[in-house]
Amino acid sequence: METLEVALGDRSYPIYIGVGCLDQANLVQQHVVGQQVMIVSNDTIAPLYLEKAKALFVGYDVSWVILPDGEKYKDLDHLNLIFDALLKHRHSRSTTLVALGGGVVGDMTGYAAASYQRGVNFIQLPTTLLAQVDSSVGGKTGVNHRLGKNMIGAFHQPQCVIIDPNCLQTLPARQLSSGLAEVIKYGLIWDEAFFSWLELEVDNFAKLDMAVIERAIYRSCEIKAEVVAQDERENGVRALLNLGHTFGHAIENCAGYGEVLHGEAVAIGTYMAADLSKQLGWLTDADCVRIEQLTQRAGLPLIPPPELSASALRDAMNLDKKVENGKVRLVLMTAIGKACVTLDFEQHQLEKTLAAGESLCK
Amino acid sequence: METLEVALGDRSYPIYIGVGCLDQANLVQQHVVGQQVMIVSNDTIAPLYLEKAKALFVGYDVSWVILPDGEKYKDLDHLNLIFDALLKHRHSRSTTLVALGGGVVGDMTGYAAASYQRGVNFIQLPTTLLAQVDSSVGGKTGVNHRLGKNMIGAFHQPQCVIIDPNCLQTLPARQLSSGLAEVIKYGLIWDEAFFSWLELEVDNFAKLDMAVIERAIYRSCEIKAEVVAQDERENGVRALLNLGHTFGHAIENCAGYGEVLHGEAVAIGTYMAADLSKQLGWLTDADCVRIEQLTQRAGLPLIPPPELSASALRDAMNLDKKVENGKVRLVLMTAIGKACVTLDFEQHQLEKTLAAGESLCK
Repeated sequence: METLEVALGDRSYPIYIGVGCLDQANLVQQHVVGQQVMIVSNDTIAPLYLEKAKALFVGYDVSWVILPDGEKYKDLDHLNLIFDALLKHRHSRSTTLVALGGGVVGDMTGYAAASYQRGVNFIQLPTTLLAQVDSSVGGKTGVNHRLGKNMIGAFHQPQCVIIDPNCLQTLPARQLSSGLAEVIKYGLIWDEAFFSWLELEVDNFAKLDMAVIERAIYRSCEIKAEVVAQDERENGVRALLNLGHTFGHAIENCAGYGEVLHGEAVAIGTYMAADLSKQLGWLTDADCVRIEQLTQRAGLPLIPPPELSASALRDAMNLDKKVENGKVRLVLMTAIGKACVTLDFEQHQLEKTLAAGESLCK
Repeated sequence: METLEVALGDRSYPIYIGVGCLDQANLVQQHVVGQQVMIVSNDTIAPLYLEKAKALFVGYDVSWVILPDGEKYKDLDHLNLIFDALLKHRHSRSTTLVALGGGVVGDMTGYAAASYQRGVNFIQLPTTLLAQVDSSVGGKTGVNHRLGKNMIGAFHQPQCVIIDPNCLQTLPARQLSSGLAEVIKYGLIWDEAFFSWLELEVDNFAKLDMAVIERAIYRSCEIKAEVVAQDERENGVRALLNLGHTFGHAIENCAGYGEVLHGEAVAIGTYMAADLSKQLGWLTDADCVRIEQLTQRAGLPLIPPPELSASALRDAMNLDKKVENGKVRLVLMTAIGKACVTLDFEQHQLEKTLAAGESLCK
């Protein structure tokens, strides 16, 4: 088992990564202050892992709440089900919430923890690759609004994150690919060598090669922890983690939450960012081909569903959190392994990217 | 005009107190960072003060959202109306929310500001005495849950608080009395001289003697600012501000939100706290008589509505945020001007207080 630290002063916390670490009760128990634990999961994950999670808290007063699975339930109404359960079971300010599931469960549990009695502790037990490499680390929590993704939330750091790659044994292939989109992102924004290593190893993810997966999770979390420690509230460098996300959120919003998986939308959005970067002369044709090939080999889509019009995507992008004075700041790439946040593009160039469809990066 | 500071490091902010200060656009504008302003008010206050508030922001991009008036609308559904308005008008992360109203509007606006895009700025323009002396200062924000008051929320400090006692000209007498309950509380927990001064001046509040009201607001805010600066997140001394509130929240919850006004419930709760303090030998008969008389002269009730049973109140109290290991911590008084947080009472003594009705403090 390996341990990373997210260094945030009195909000610092460890990330434990290792096959089988979800079986180690002592690991998680040292991060539980009181006697009450509320496990939050969904109806896909609970049948697979709820008993395992409960076994971590023998001797505690454990309750659980099971949400319907899916991005489309990541809203205030379903958040309220967590509050209902906490109040029904009379959980106090010293309770610990435990997020057992993917990104949606983690984001909702974290926001519920940020808000219940104005803030209680929580722990992340991510069970999808996407949550393990990205959403469980860094303290971004929240829910969607009909008019925009992740528009309602809080920065609230967990007490610890426990990542057991064994959970990926039960993860559908499409979900595994979705997580790979975020892994590829770290290579693109931060670490060309990691991107090259992924080019060598990408086929081993689908084969569930645990050594490869564990290394990818470790390096992804290491980069994320470094970025978050520098800029917890996204006033600067943390924005780079949003590569592909402004395009991606617009795709998710226009397609209807859950129709295109988050990682799929990020993959498409990253390819759109590559297209715009290429228009600006920042990426070469060869760079774009590398991105295209790795994305495809990871089992991810490259172009948006044809029914999403450029104008619908543009309108959705204008609602993004990154909009200032009517113009959206985008993360673009200047090389593989190097990205920047920029307003340095013309509207007609963005329009061209949004309308490109199969001509993206061509 | 007088200025107080709530000293919280990089979250410090001023409280401006003075007749007519709601007419000074320069006062508020220095605390607005971007160009967008969203005024949140209710359908009682908006007809009286919305135009005045809008006049403070000439030259800004001003939107507004009007909520239904009342504690019973302080919930997640109505909070979502604020998010709807922010997204519909495309407010960015640099927007400023402006709470124009009483405690409910302030708490909801503050929580919306804490949550929108994971945190934006907000300003308090309190229009009720209760909000002016208590709820607008200190950064406690949130909404109610069916099973408990203020159970969902955040600590989120405003950029400034602007208190114009002139607003009280339009405040119904019952609401003015409700605010006095919190004013009396400051005397009871912190400042015997202030309590004595209130005994002299209490009749001048109903006469809208602005000099008396301004002095009462100033001293109340001064005490609150001092307490909050020492203990922002209520790990210690801040809990004293909850005198009467654990009883009071139970009364509000059992009676149905809005039936008994918050200040009325606090007045009753304070008298219950006096009863329990007297049972413990901490308050004398004479102290209780002083509390009884000042409360009555302020136009406030002393005993809970007879339809609220002791067992219903006890059950509601057990849901309070101050419950630990099944026992509720209470703020009790050891003298007029001196209070403590304690578990140092027997359950049967608490039961006696809850069942006392007209025999409270007798």
